[in-house]
Amino acid sequence: MAQHELGPLPPVPGFRFAALPAGIRADGRADLALAVADRVAGAAGLFTRNLVRAAPVELASARLRAGRGRAIVVNSGCANACTGAPGLEAAERVTAAVARGLGWDREDVLPASTGVIGRLLPADRIEAQVPGLVGALSPGSLGEFARAILTTDRWPKVAERALPGGGRVVAVGKGAGMIHPELGTLGDADAGTPHATMLVFVFTDAVADPGTLERALVGAAAGTFNATSVDGDTSTNDCVLALASGATAARPSLPELEATLGAAFEALARSMVRDGEGAEHVVELRVRGLAEVAACRAVARTVATSLLVKTALHGRDANWGRLLAAAGRAGVGFDPGRARITIAGVEIVRAGVSVGAEAEARAEAAMAAEDYVIELELGDSSASARYLTSDLGHGYVDVNASYRT
Amino acid sequence: MAQHELGPLPPVPGFRFAALPAGIRADGRADLALAVADRVAGAAGLFTRNLVRAAPVELASARLRAGRGRAIVVNSGCANACTGAPGLEAAERVTAAVARGLGWDREDVLPASTGVIGRLLPADRIEAQVPGLVGALSPGSLGEFARAILTTDRWPKVAERALPGGGRVVAVGKGAGMIHPELGTLGDADAGTPHATMLVFVFTDAVADPGTLERALVGAAAGTFNATSVDGDTSTNDCVLALASGATAARPSLPELEATLGAAFEALARSMVRDGEGAEHVVELRVRGLAEVAACRAVARTVATSLLVKTALHGRDANWGRLLAAAGRAGVGFDPGRARITIAGVEIVRAGVSVGAEAEARAEAAMAAEDYVIELELGDSSASARYLTSDLGHGYVDVNASYRT
Repeated sequence: MAQHELGPLPPVPGFRFAALPAGIRADGRADLALAVADRVAGAAGLFTRNLVRAAPVELASARLRAGRGRAIVVNSGCANACTGAPGLEAAERVTAAVARGLGWDREDVLPASTGVIGRLLPADRIEAQVPGLVGALSPGSLGEFARAILTTDRWPKVAERALPGGGRVVAVGKGAGMIHPELGTLGDADAGTPHATMLVFVFTDAVADPGTLERALVGAAAGTFNATSVDGDTSTNDCVLALASGATAARPSLPELEATLGAAFEALARSMVRDGEGAEHVVELRVRGLAEVAACRAVARTVATSLLVKTALHGRDANWGRLLAAAGRAGVGFDPGRARITIAGVEIVRAGVSVGAEAEARAEAAMAAEDYVIELELGDSSASARYLTSDLGHGYVDVNASYRT
Repeated sequence: MAQHELGPLPPVPGFRFAALPAGIRADGRADLALAVADRVAGAAGLFTRNLVRAAPVELASARLRAGRGRAIVVNSGCANACTGAPGLEAAERVTAAVARGLGWDREDVLPASTGVIGRLLPADRIEAQVPGLVGALSPGSLGEFARAILTTDRWPKVAERALPGGGRVVAVGKGAGMIHPELGTLGDADAGTPHATMLVFVFTDAVADPGTLERALVGAAAGTFNATSVDGDTSTNDCVLALASGATAARPSLPELEATLGAAFEALARSMVRDGEGAEHVVELRVRGLAEVAACRAVARTVATSLLVKTALHGRDANWGRLLAAAGRAGVGFDPGRARITIAGVEIVRAGVSVGAEAEARAEAAMAAEDYVIELELGDSSASARYLTSDLGHGYVDVNASYRT
């Protein structure tokens, strides 16, 4: 997994990649990327559960539902969200141009976009670049693909894991703000359960049918992307799109595929939180001791998204009162008098009250670490849940009070 | 209503006030305040629905439930929350000392605290000051009371309204951060629906029995304090305590009392949001067009607490995409294609898409105002809801990343 800089990325058998500047971004950086599987064994995806879904989300999910998808065209610099019928038409035109270049049907092409909401995708400009993009496709261009999809990210995000029985999984992501994905499958009609723009693309040379691939994505995302928050704001554009080329003929079982994807997703989720706008720490919140996982998760999510908690983490303040106060507004029953809290392994609250100033001082020293764990034990039951979160400082305000200007 | 400076405050018939420095705060400011009604016609209160309730909240609610309460002792500098049995004992001792000074029972005294969570109330130090505090009681000391209860507030908050049939309502508040009260009555067992430390004390010279007073508080808080957010974090200490002295013999009806309290609460809520830590704007979000008030309220609350929305407000960025994306994750159904959004009366979204760059520029010019309204119209139904919120900038991070140090 490359955290800050990409090392050399070996080709993923069966895939070719390309990227170039199409003039969508003002800064002239590469902003249009393409990935294609010449033969595809399976395609699947997870999508934002925000009720407001960008045009590329509508199009990609419809095509996967119809059993299609062997190429992915991604642009940064424009989300093409809240752009109505012209937005859908622009997304259609871009996928059609890619399909023409490849000699395929437009239904074979899955679009994804990230950038400012409310701006129409500049289809004319993109169409003009598609022949050059298709012509540039090469097995060795995964790094270019990974860089072209970035927005406010400071580094590209690629995680690679070997499957136990042969073959590999390579996951490429972007995301640094508007990060709180709660992804659903094609069958999830329950819009509105949501949360940021995170784009993740999975390429595997193993054989996986669409149903197995989707189930593995759901399982792998549950404890990783769907338990990650930079700012609590779920995007209109979040998606995970996965293509299996089958080029190695390896046939992982569902548990093998899910576990391998889960390891790659964990690495990407940590890289996104570490790159969280203005963030200095990656904090893993673990909540345990309640009877239900859902209750543990509600507490973890409420604490992970509390502004007062996140600013305290930024200030390296072992302000356990804010942790407990956030837990207390999660809509979940527990006995505050039994709460136990550790920060980076230092017990600072026992039976609901402070262990003492010396323990707090030790916890605060440990909070200088880039990564650490906070544990909230709220009872004797066995359920648990976790959430990855970042601290919140001036950098977040800098990025987001002036993002469009 | 005094916004930044307190003008002269006429006495409230039947009440006496006092405040002095008891050494709870490190800065030597007055931090202990007392209000007493020599005769009381009614007492009532609303309390935080956070599951984690500070010792003074436990004690004051129990005494009101028992039909008691004619004096209020308040300290700043220490929340006495998450302090276990010693915290309850400290609160008991302070109320007992006040009762001894007044020659009453301790059950007549309602405590309230605000400050850092997890620190035990210094009962010894406070007890030593109580005789002086009781000795200083005077009808003219409401201003001293209002100043002693402040924490991070930049100004005292007092709102005064005449009742239609005679008599007055005077509401004194504090609150600038950890502000997102969702107050419940004594009968509300549903802890955990919550949200900041806001303290409000109501003094009226009218006659009101406890039941009428409580119902009027509930109605007045619903559209004001319970629709107000600085940071989405509900405190362990929020409360509204009301005493009616009956000194004028005015007998307002429930609707009269509720409407007059509502006007005073609206003024206090606006003053709190204006004083929101680091805030430069008071923004009223109005959501309408859905079938249910609860749905409108869920959208208003989600938009009002979105970090990306609040940072955009700070940047005076008419970033309607963030408004719509937040609405879309509220867990409520609507057709984004029908959304209409106005900022300060400037229509910037119609049928779900941008009205154009010129409208956005006009909206952004209007966002320089200290106060303005954002309207989200999401359908043709008649329900509506509103929320008061602030922008979020560097000042919030400054205050909250270093609050305890």
